[in-house]
Order: sequence, then structure tokens, then C-alpha cells
Amino acid sequence: MSRQVTIAEIAERAGVSPGAVSFALNGRKGVSEATRTRILLVADELGWAPGAAAKSLTAKKTNSIGLVLARDPANLGVESFFMQFIAGMETELSPRGFGLLLQVAPDTASQLKTLRRWRTTRRVDGVLLMDLREDDPRADYFAQHPEFPAVAVADPTAAPGLATVWTDDAEAMREAVRALAAAGHRRIARVAGLSALVHTQIRDAAFRDEIAALGCEGMLLRTDYSPEEGARVTEQAIAASDPPTAFVYDNDIMAIASLGVFARAGLRVPEDVSIIAWDDSLICRYTVPALTTLSHDVVAFGAHAARRLFDVMSGSAPAAFLDSTPRLEVRGSTADAPIRSA
Amino acid sequence: MSRQVTIAEIAERAGVSPGAVSFALNGRKGVSEATRTRILLVADELGWAPGAAAKSLTAKKTNSIGLVLARDPANLGVESFFMQFIAGMETELSPRGFGLLLQVAPDTASQLKTLRRWRTTRRVDGVLLMDLREDDPRADYFAQHPEFPAVAVADPTAAPGLATVWTDDAEAMREAVRALAAAGHRRIARVAGLSALVHTQIRDAAFRDEIAALGCEGMLLRTDYSPEEGARVTEQAIAASDPPTAFVYDNDIMAIASLGVFARAGLRVPEDVSIIAWDDSLICRYTVPALTTLSHDVVAFGAHAARRLFDVMSGSAPAAFLDSTPRLEVRGSTADAPIRSA
Repeated sequence: MSRQVTIAEIAERAGVSPGAVSFALNGRKGVSEATRTRILLVADELGWAPGAAAKSLTAKKTNSIGLVLARDPANLGVESFFMQFIAGMETELSPRGFGLLLQVAPDTASQLKTLRRWRTTRRVDGVLLMDLREDDPRADYFAQHPEFPAVAVADPTAAPGLATVWTDDAEAMREAVRALAAAGHRRIARVAGLSALVHTQIRDAAFRDEIAALGCEGMLLRTDYSPEEGARVTEQAIAASDPPTAFVYDNDIMAIASLGVFARAGLRVPEDVSIIAWDDSLICRYTVPALTTLSHDVVAFGAHAARRLFDVMSGSAPAAFLDSTPRLEVRGSTADAPIRSA
Repeated sequence: MSRQVTIAEIAERAGVSPGAVSFALNGRKGVSEATRTRILLVADELGWAPGAAAKSLTAKKTNSIGLVLARDPANLGVESFFMQFIAGMETELSPRGFGLLLQVAPDTASQLKTLRRWRTTRRVDGVLLMDLREDDPRADYFAQHPEFPAVAVADPTAAPGLATVWTDDAEAMREAVRALAAAGHRRIARVAGLSALVHTQIRDAAFRDEIAALGCEGMLLRTDYSPEEGARVTEQAIAASDPPTAFVYDNDIMAIASLGVFARAGLRVPEDVSIIAWDDSLICRYTVPALTTLSHDVVAFGAHAARRLFDVMSGSAPAAFLDSTPRLEVRGSTADAPIRSA
């Protein structure tokens, strides 16, 4: 917004005196911390551009970076992905003496509110954005405030104008489908995560394209990433009249949950059914059979994202950085398709 | 320390002018943030007691609490415990608009340095301490600074003078040994975590006591909690001339790793060998067989610890709070001891 917002406008909207606004915007005493935060948030909403005095205030260093996790806190511990990613970030933060400010905010409105508060009150020196949705207001917000360092852990198309660190999930998905088709599988199921996430949509599209290109039949099953839903949709799929002979899961825990489903149904892995997991957590190597996975080093991914954020904090221009293409790590859970009696 | 430390002493130790010390201690401009932090740390080392002006400075609210994880960042993602615990904390922090400042510091010196910096520069409103060691300097530090809110997630004996939230690991361990002995197991192995941690020592002692009381033979195996070491010591144990018929693991991931070891050795679980895991992560329900565990709700534990910290931040006196006694959740990995041919 190019029009200059006035102190009077901010004062009216915030329900305080113009003097209080002046104190708050210039970082001077005379207003409480709570009032100052409220005034800064209102000013930010109205598109206020900080003057020199306020800029010096907001330039203070916090030696911490922020991460908002867009998940239900009760489900966070289920997947090992986030803790591995955070552990990777910490390998970069810890030697620099930086802390990680973590906030879990399940809905988009509260995520944006947290990020705006962090920016306007300069609670962190920069932020990492994850789990972006289509037209995500968080990406828009930081694209509109390029002075505040932000890196999106997302496909470059999901965060125009921001620095991004991404994995090529489309190519990984195509590789999985090609490998299963080459082993004779013609009916292949994809057990997908949250459909609102951009990276889910990218995997969906790649799955559909490759299935069509190879003349296979695809089955797309929706879940919330939980082992319960992974097990539920797997049960439904094998109850079909002509069930899939191969399943590609969007994480590790759903694939592990499926092992119990197949065992109870009397289906052997990999003789009767092949399964591939996404994210190669350690646990995948210790199940029986060990899981074939789309493998990438999540700890290294987190470290890479943190390094790119430090680069942006040092003034680097935003760019898109490919972290890796998850590669098919073949273990014991995949084999040639079973020969069916006609 | 009761003697009053002088500005001159702090200035000399920090290598700055007395004027700079005065600025820093009184929270006024005139010194850089880096210098201010250094001066505050030196003052803290010397036992400086803040005066009224400095107290008003340090009384500012940050709306965040701190957690230092005393682990190698590269191994953090392996266990689901920490992410579940953090997720539980977030269920209390998120509705209050609080953030969690997380720092991973692998050694005691850097942990203490981080905590001292957080306290002296008031980076957080309070801290949770975890993974305490015997005579842990972190517990001593906060016991000496009772004005700074701290809660130890630890047995009360590990943190005298601090509020503690704990689980009765000794009773849980005794229950596991009793159940195995009642099923006819006479040679029982404990696969233990890091021996320097107080809760490992408590489990060790309870294991030894109950084994002796029941006239069983115990085998104590040391690991760093990693699946690799869990697998390694299990392999060694079953190679013994008279191997254990039951194993109690100190976490979930080592128990899962052992499933592969037993499968490769041709030992059936639970017909030939019984296993019990500690921490009932979701994954334990989905392995084949599902794992018998010492089960407690880690998400609820994290939430409980956060609530107690908010209580201390509101002025509650320190006390010891039992969160729970992990209970034996019997699933498919335990059975009667095999009858051996003589």
C-alpha cells in the first residue's frame, strides 16, 4: 500500500490516543507492552510503513528464528518428520547460539496472527514457513514485506517472491509408479495426506499423470496422515472386488499401520502386495519386512532450510533451492506383482 | 551470594568501562546488544543482585517459555518422545498465545550457558528442564535463582528446591519384571538408555532390586537409546550360552529394532522371546506383533509440565507433582516363557 497511513487513523482503529500511537511506533516508554503490541498490529493491518526511528527499533537482533507449525498439536508427535526437520535446523542454529521459537497454530487465521505479531514486534530475526496451502496468506504476507527475512519450505510455485527450499516430490512420485509398473503392478493405490497442502496436490498430479502415461489403474485415497486413517483406507481398498496390488503411502507411519492390516487380512508383503512409504525414518529399516521408501534426508533438509534463512537474513536475494529428489530405496516390502488366477 | 558486587568488579571482568556496565545493568541505551548480553552474563557469574531499576527491566514479559534439549541434534528425531512432549506443551501454550523457545545443546556447559543467557537477558518467562543428570548444575542454578520460574521434568530427588513433574519409573519397572517373572521368565535383560541420566539410574536400581527379590537373573545392557545400539546389544545377548527369554527396552525404537534381530536369528516373538518397550508411541500398536509397553500418555505429560510452569510463573510455591506411573499395556509381544529342553 503506497498511501501514507496517519497516526490519527491508527489511533482511531486501535481505540487509543494519538500520543499512545506515537509512543508505540517510536518504541518509547509511555505505553504498556500489551498496548504497544496491539497498536503495532493495527498499524501493520493498515499498511503502515515504519519511519527511520521505528526502523531502528525493529532492527534489534533477537538471535532466534521462528517456525509456526500448521498442525493440530495432538497429532504432531505421530510423524517423525517434524522432529527430524527441527533437529536438522538445530544443527545450524545451535553453533550460532540461535534459538528456535516454535508455535503451533492449527488454523490459518491464528498462524497469520502469530507471524504478524512476530514481525511487527520483531520477536524473531526471520521465519521458516512450512505446509503451505494454495494461495496461502502467509506467503502473500511475507512477499508484501520483503524487508522481513522469510524462507518457505515449499515448491517455488507455492510462494512467489519468497526464497524457497524444496524437494522434487513430483519426480519422486513418478519414479515410484514407474518402478511398480515395471514390476508388473497394474492397479496402484496412492494413500495421500492432507489434500489442502500444495505438496499433496503436486504428488496427486504426478501420480495421475504417470498412471495414465503407463496405462495403469490408479486409486487415490484421502487421509489426514494419521495411522488410523492410513489403516482405514487400506482396509477399504483391499475389500474392493479387484483390489490394488501396490500401495504408495504419503508418510512412514501410514505404511507401518498398513502392515497390520495386511497381516490380519492374510495378505503377505511383498508376495501378495507391495508397499512404498514416503520419508525414510529409521523405523522403516526395522519393520518386518523393512520398507521400501521414497527416501530423503530430513535432518539435512532442515539444516539446509535454516542455512538459506541465514543467507536471506544476511541480505541474499530470494531464490528457489532444490534440496533433493527423494529416491526410491528398495527394501523388502516391494516385489513383482502376484500372478492372479483368472 | 550475599556480598554486594560492585560495578567496578563487573567492568574489570568484562573488559569494559564502568559506564558501559551502568548502562547495561540499567537497561539504557549506549551499549550494543552484544556487549549488554556479555556484561549481564559476567554480572550474573559474579552473583550480582539486580536493583529496582534493573528489576523493572527484567520483569518484561516475553510470552514465551524455554526448553533446552540436552541431546545430540542428529539423534533428536529418532525417538517420538520429544515431539510428543512438545506437542503436549503446545496444547497449553497455543491457547495462551505463548511460544516455545527451543535450543538444542549437547553438553552441560553449553546448556548452562544458554539458560544463564535466557535468565539474565529475560529472553523467556520461565524454563522447563529435562534429562537431568546427577548433581546437575542446571538444577543448582535455578535453585539459586528462585525468582526465575523453572520446572524440572524429573524425579524430585534430582532437583531439590525446584518444582518437579515426574513419572514413577521405579514402580513401572518393578511391574514389568514382576509380570515377566509371573509368566515363568527367569533370565531377563534390561536394555537401558544413557547411564548418566537420573531416570536411567532409577530404572536400573528398580530393575536390580526386583530381579533380586524374585530370585531371577538380570542382565543390564547399556545403550545411547539409538536403534543401532538396541539391535547390537540384543544380538550380543542372544549369542550368550544361556540367553535371556525376556527383554525390557528403555524406549520404543530399540524394541522395534530388536524385532528384526529376533527375526533374523529365527527366534519368534512372543513364543521364544518376550519383549516390553518403554513409551507407548502409536507405532508400537502397528508392529507385528504389536508391542507390550510400559505405557504413559506423553502428550498429556508435556501438557501437565507446561501447566505447572504457568503455575510457578503465577507465584505458586515449588512442589513435586506425580504425573503418572507408566502401566503395563499387554499386547502381542509377551507370553509365557518357553519350555527349554534340558
